[in-house]
Amino acid sequence: MAATTKVTSSKEISPAVIKRLPRYYRYLGELKESEVSRISSKELSQRMQVTASQIRQDLNNFGGFGQQGYGYNVEYLYEEIGKILGLDKTNNLIIVGAGNLGQALANYHFEPNGFRVLGLFDVNPRLVGLTIRGVEIYDIDTLADFIKSHDIKIAALTLPKQTAPEMAKEMVGLGIKAFWNFAPVDLDLPENIMVENVHLAESLMTLSYRIHSSLK
Amino acid sequence: MAATTKVTSSKEISPAVIKRLPRYYRYLGELKESEVSRISSKELSQRMQVTASQIRQDLNNFGGFGQQGYGYNVEYLYEEIGKILGLDKTNNLIIVGAGNLGQALANYHFEPNGFRVLGLFDVNPRLVGLTIRGVEIYDIDTLADFIKSHDIKIAALTLPKQTAPEMAKEMVGLGIKAFWNFAPVDLDLPENIMVENVHLAESLMTLSYRIHSSLK
Repeated sequence: MAATTKVTSSKEISPAVIKRLPRYYRYLGELKESEVSRISSKELSQRMQVTASQIRQDLNNFGGFGQQGYGYNVEYLYEEIGKILGLDKTNNLIIVGAGNLGQALANYHFEPNGFRVLGLFDVNPRLVGLTIRGVEIYDIDTLADFIKSHDIKIAALTLPKQTAPEMAKEMVGLGIKAFWNFAPVDLDLPENIMVENVHLAESLMTLSYRIHSSLK
Repeated sequence: MAATTKVTSSKEISPAVIKRLPRYYRYLGELKESEVSRISSKELSQRMQVTASQIRQDLNNFGGFGQQGYGYNVEYLYEEIGKILGLDKTNNLIIVGAGNLGQALANYHFEPNGFRVLGLFDVNPRLVGLTIRGVEIYDIDTLADFIKSHDIKIAALTLPKQTAPEMAKEMVGLGIKAFWNFAPVDLDLPENIMVENVHLAESLMTLSYRIHSSLK
């Protein structure tokens, strides 16, 4: 086995592997924080509770392992997976809807993941002008200008289900390409627009199902 | 085809169908709100953007359709799916961690989904005693008594990753059976304990991957 293997182009990595990458990234980040520089697939598999063979298969996509028996180079793999995920670049985003959930997201530590919140937007005049963790809440009427002047492509949507779909359509017209959607509704947008849904109620219902079926 | 078919026991329904149920439940709820009483699988498939045959297969698990050509009885299906998901019963839960995210969850409309938040808990003395949408924030020191006296089985965990795992273990000792975990960490708990993870950073990383791979 070669000492270093060339990183495969991200285009060749399967969607199933991509879906698992954020979790690898999190675990490798924790190892890095704990100043672990190398880890075997066996140790990593025990921590992550997946099989060592799954880990080897997944991480073979990224090369970056030393000679057999020496384990993975934690920092190298962390960086490579970060690059594949696009986390080495800074993505500016806005949060539309500055209620509790919007404010909670503004308080979230995005920066280590390559994201920076440039502004929150709301219709509520009592919220406009407030600052959450250094990020200002702006009047929704200034949204169009802000998106254009800051060349924003990504928006978190923390609006009620009644207003979210129409607002999302408007924002597509203003240049938004990707939505992190927390509104409990499916957005009906052009195919080239990316949507990542976080449907909290549905996740809670899944838990409810599991609780009740375990009681039967 | 019989006019009504008996509802299949939930034990026979496949996990893949279960995973899709909350979305059906949401759409049927919206139809009910709009006072639609019957809908064909074709119409429903157009709304939900899945195939009509998928819908027919999934909903066959629940019976509740009239003669062919008459479509689904919206209210009946809504109720039946709700029962399968355990939403016809009220589940009391607590929220541990009363920061922005915990407060956002307390503000969330849980009740229609069969959940009722009985209390929030935090270590921060400045938060203790405040009320969020009628729900009090209590001192974390009172958690053990509260769980016992209110027979709480479910907890939303909105703590930092540093404190969440240990707190979850303690809470299992106090009788908690199910966690809705928002801490960006995997909880290492006994097998009979249910965990539904909402890993926000991982969802955002997936969006980041899609944005950057679309730019290549």
